[in-house]
Amino acid sequence: MRLARVIGSVVATIKHEALQGRKLLMVQPIDPYGEDTGEQVIAIDQVQAGVGDRVLLLEEGTSSRQILHYENAPIRCVIVGIVDHVELAAQPASV
Amino acid sequence: MRLARVIGSVVATIKHEALQGRKLLMVQPIDPYGEDTGEQVIAIDQVQAGVGDRVLLLEEGTSSRQILHYENAPIRCVIVGIVDHVELAAQPASV
Amino acid sequence: MRLARVIGSVVATIKHEALQGRKLLMVQPIDPYGEDTGEQVIAIDQVQAGVGDRVLLLEEGTSSRQILHYENAPIRCVIVGIVDHVELAAQPASV
Amino acid sequence: MRLARVIGSVVATIKHEALQGRKLLMVQPIDPYGEDTGEQVIAIDQVQAGVGDRVLLLEEGTSSRQILHYENAPIRCVIVGIVDHVELAAQPASV
Amino acid sequence: MRLARVIGSVVATIKHEALQGRKLLMVQPIDPYGEDTGEQVIAIDQVQAGVGDRVLLLEEGTSSRQILHYENAPIRCVIVGIVDHVELAAQPASV
Repeated sequence: MRLARVIGSVVATIKHEALQGRKLLMVQPIDPYGEDTGEQVIAIDQVQAGVGDRVLLLEEGTSSRQILHYENAPIRCVIVGIVDHVELAAQPASV
Repeated sequence: MRLARVIGSVVATIKHEALQGRKLLMVQPIDPYGEDTGEQVIAIDQVQAGVGDRVLLLEEGTSSRQILHYENAPIRCVIVGIVDHVELAAQPASV
Repeated sequence: MRLARVIGSVVATIKHEALQGRKLLMVQPIDPYGEDTGEQVIAIDQVQAGVGDRVLLLEEGTSSRQILHYENAPIRCVIVGIVDHVELAAQPASV
Repeated sequence: MRLARVIGSVVATIKHEALQGRKLLMVQPIDPYGEDTGEQVIAIDQVQAGVGDRVLLLEEGTSSRQILHYENAPIRCVIVGIVDHVELAAQPASV
Repeated sequence: MRLARVIGSVVATIKHEALQGRKLLMVQPIDPYGEDTGEQVIAIDQVQAGVGDRVLLLEEGTSSRQILHYENAPIRCVIVGIVDHVELAAQPASV
């Protein structure tokens, strides 16, 4: 899983039937300090996330289909949690 | 899923039988602002997408084969929707 | 597997039921010399790792679910070992 | 799938039995304009590709094993087509 | 598969039971010219590779578990061959 922030939504009239009626959110992966990191992906929402929320982003096909109870869904990214806060060590640990 | 734009097509006479008769589109992943991001991939079209269309690109083998109803297809990338528009928050949300 | 360092933890009240009661750790992939490399991920702990520990990070859905004995868990990253030390060749080998 | 160019071959006397007797080609992913992009991978040839050929490169384990009719093969990359040409839009489409 | 070079080993006393008794090697992916490329990974050895060897690195969960005859092993990277040499075209092929 990765940390991400919901930045918008995607509207697509023509799409695969498994995607009909599902809300597609545009999410931006972020690091623990809130900075953008990596490319935006389009995810299905499972926790009523809204724009601006920090979320737990799961990127894996098998898990995603199981969560949605839809075995053949062409889906790979799902939002599985809303993050309250991230606790970080005060200093980078010495290695 | 990722946002992508169809930029062309690929012609291959010699290819695996599972690819015979399928249209191979060259797609460029893009960010929500329309900028290129990441490497181009070759995808199978399932929604009659054309050059210039913004599309939903699915990159995962199991889903792709299920969509095509062809269990052994050597296929990993499929276009599963045509994007009408992307709604973005006016400002990056504070974190 | 990759080498990583535990840098913190993530608190999420609203989350998928499969994640209830599980400790979510924020980990930073590192190279053998201890330098950060690549993006942070959120992993489930299976070896009582703590902040500052160097760990073995497994990133794959099927394995992760098997380790947790929870077939439908929306989980992809698991900490499967605590690293005592890394032995490196004195010089890069000639190729 | 990705576009790639065959740049050489790999000789390995000691290898897993599933790889015995298979030709291992070194391929360089390229973009539609012929420029190198990303890291070289080692692939199994299924279409009699030769050095210099532009090819369709499939990178996914399940598909690869099905194409080779060898269920347990430790194989992830297979060449599944030889590219005749790539047709690109004259201009990047406006978004 | 990718080309890699064994650069060291990893010692972890506390680890998942499936990893007990297995030798964990630190490997550095390299390009065909011997230059480092990409991040180091931790792999299981199946061909008696040693530090300095150039090897064939397989990165995929399903294959890895099948090679090890251990269905639930939390393993994703396995060394499946030792490379004798890489033959490259004298000149980059024209495209």
